[in-house]
Amino acid sequence: MEHPTPGREAPVPTAGRHRPAGVPVEPGIARIAVDLLGGDGAPAVVVDGALRACSADPDLHLLLVGPPEVAGELVGALPQADRDRVSVRPVRAVVGMADAPTGAKRPDTTVRAAVAAVAEGGADALVSAGASGATVTAAVLGLGRWSGVRRPALVATLPAESGPVVLLDVGASFEARPGTLARHAALGAAYAATVHKVRHPRVGLLSIGTEPGKGDRARRAADPFIAAQSLPSEARYVGLVEGYEVSLGAHADVIVADGFTGNVLLKGIEGTYTRCRQDRSETPPRAAALVGVGGVVIVCHGAATGADVASGIALAAHLHRRAAATEIATLLGVSHG
Amino acid sequence: MEHPTPGREAPVPTAGRHRPAGVPVEPGIARIAVDLLGGDGAPAVVVDGALRACSADPDLHLLLVGPPEVAGELVGALPQADRDRVSVRPVRAVVGMADAPTGAKRPDTTVRAAVAAVAEGGADALVSAGASGATVTAAVLGLGRWSGVRRPALVATLPAESGPVVLLDVGASFEARPGTLARHAALGAAYAATVHKVRHPRVGLLSIGTEPGKGDRARRAADPFIAAQSLPSEARYVGLVEGYEVSLGAHADVIVADGFTGNVLLKGIEGTYTRCRQDRSETPPRAAALVGVGGVVIVCHGAATGADVASGIALAAHLHRRAAATEIATLLGVSHG
Repeated sequence: MEHPTPGREAPVPTAGRHRPAGVPVEPGIARIAVDLLGGDGAPAVVVDGALRACSADPDLHLLLVGPPEVAGELVGALPQADRDRVSVRPVRAVVGMADAPTGAKRPDTTVRAAVAAVAEGGADALVSAGASGATVTAAVLGLGRWSGVRRPALVATLPAESGPVVLLDVGASFEARPGTLARHAALGAAYAATVHKVRHPRVGLLSIGTEPGKGDRARRAADPFIAAQSLPSEARYVGLVEGYEVSLGAHADVIVADGFTGNVLLKGIEGTYTRCRQDRSETPPRAAALVGVGGVVIVCHGAATGADVASGIALAAHLHRRAAATEIATLLGVSHG
Repeated sequence: MEHPTPGREAPVPTAGRHRPAGVPVEPGIARIAVDLLGGDGAPAVVVDGALRACSADPDLHLLLVGPPEVAGELVGALPQADRDRVSVRPVRAVVGMADAPTGAKRPDTTVRAAVAAVAEGGADALVSAGASGATVTAAVLGLGRWSGVRRPALVATLPAESGPVVLLDVGASFEARPGTLARHAALGAAYAATVHKVRHPRVGLLSIGTEPGKGDRARRAADPFIAAQSLPSEARYVGLVEGYEVSLGAHADVIVADGFTGNVLLKGIEGTYTRCRQDRSETPPRAAALVGVGGVVIVCHGAATGADVASGIALAAHLHRRAAATEIATLLGVSHG
């Protein structure tokens, strides 16, 4: 059914390339599987994003997962010298934005094929702008979960006054049990330390006031539970924090939310940045990392633009090059499959 | 214990006054009780806010509820001609920001005395920047709830591309049952029609995707429930909306959330506006109206500035002058006590 074409190494140009502001480009081959059919604007915005990413990062190799004619169009738009960095896995089925996440149980979809490429070693990471529930389901099915991480978390990074702020979970699950929030506190601390080199990350639990006892039942239960656990990377739990914190970062570097609240908040902040018409480099990258599954998985959201998809691909390459998953799992003392 | 001083009518100056941008000033006496001790920055920021409000609105009368020496300082800072517009209710106890909302059961606190002033007819509305849970408790105890409104809602208005967007509940309760969210959908529609003159308000339920079925269990249960009810003011239910909507307003004028999510989102958006350093007139007013109790109650949040308190007082005067509570209750077909 599928005919993967192995990626080939390409000559590495070293100058004259445009790099999007704020996206770090490090050396080292990174092979990223891209779900061509995921997202509201697919395939056009995904093609646009893949072209931008390819142009910005000379060590990037792309595995395009989707209809061959779409992939062919993308390849045709690349300079001749870059075409060797792109390979194609032909797949036609997609889990639509309106489909249930269980649609990802179908093995013949683009998101499952992209996950399979990572699982088989044909790609180092994958990026999808399809429905995040479907991507999470596909990733858990195809890559497995880390030991001790029952609920993988979608991790977003936002720009704050004080530096990057890590917000999780932004939509992988809706559960707000103390054990899950505490596990995510540890995940977030390790992510901040590994990916953003934050020293002694300050970890806060998102609630509606900062005094102990402020919040709903879930937060009141989780607060002492998180306070009682030890965190990796010499992180420190600072207690309850409020919604301001995500954009200001005055009291926390890592903010733990259930996936429903985190998703709503992230999109509310994104909408506000859009309204403020901030310079794009100041807006939060609209891509989140799924942490807790056995591979690097990046979820761009459904309304992603080409620039967002390019950011997602750059983030995937960055996490792969930093061996972030291995480092985070090691910090947590878990097996990452 | 309390020695209310009746407010006296003052000469109404008509020119040479500074009015904060964006705050409408209509004619008509409005007598606002102000909780001098509520909020992190009390009494200083409350005094500052009251002075600003008094200067901006010549028909405003203030009933200062708090320690007489604080009230005296405020009165001393006013021009002689304005002093007759201020009266004092001496109260020394306060429900602190870290106290449980049940602290508002104590009758000798500033927030309860401010509520009592409204209940007794000595003031038309009250403003407090104290803990919102305490203000809600005090208001329900002292003013009662509207018939058919088991959970009053805190209603915030945010500036969006398309005009004002009404967000509720932003923290009066944490409940997310279908019946409560549906009631709040109707409350919000009537509020938008009455206070912001929105014609045929579009009402959305806040979730993490727009397709039916997107969201947690509470949202999946509430969506068909709200769709099945009729809304006042020829409002139309548009289904699920995402966090972006609050700042963009492309698809909804009224956005319904449980109080936990709404509070987190509101503060996240506020923090982002702060970070964007937008012109103050563009930032959301940091004051919310408690709708569903038998009086006009405005909650400024704990970290309110003087400008925020002034906005809250202006909003209180505006709702009183518009007889908004009566109109909203009439639109809902409920008795407002």
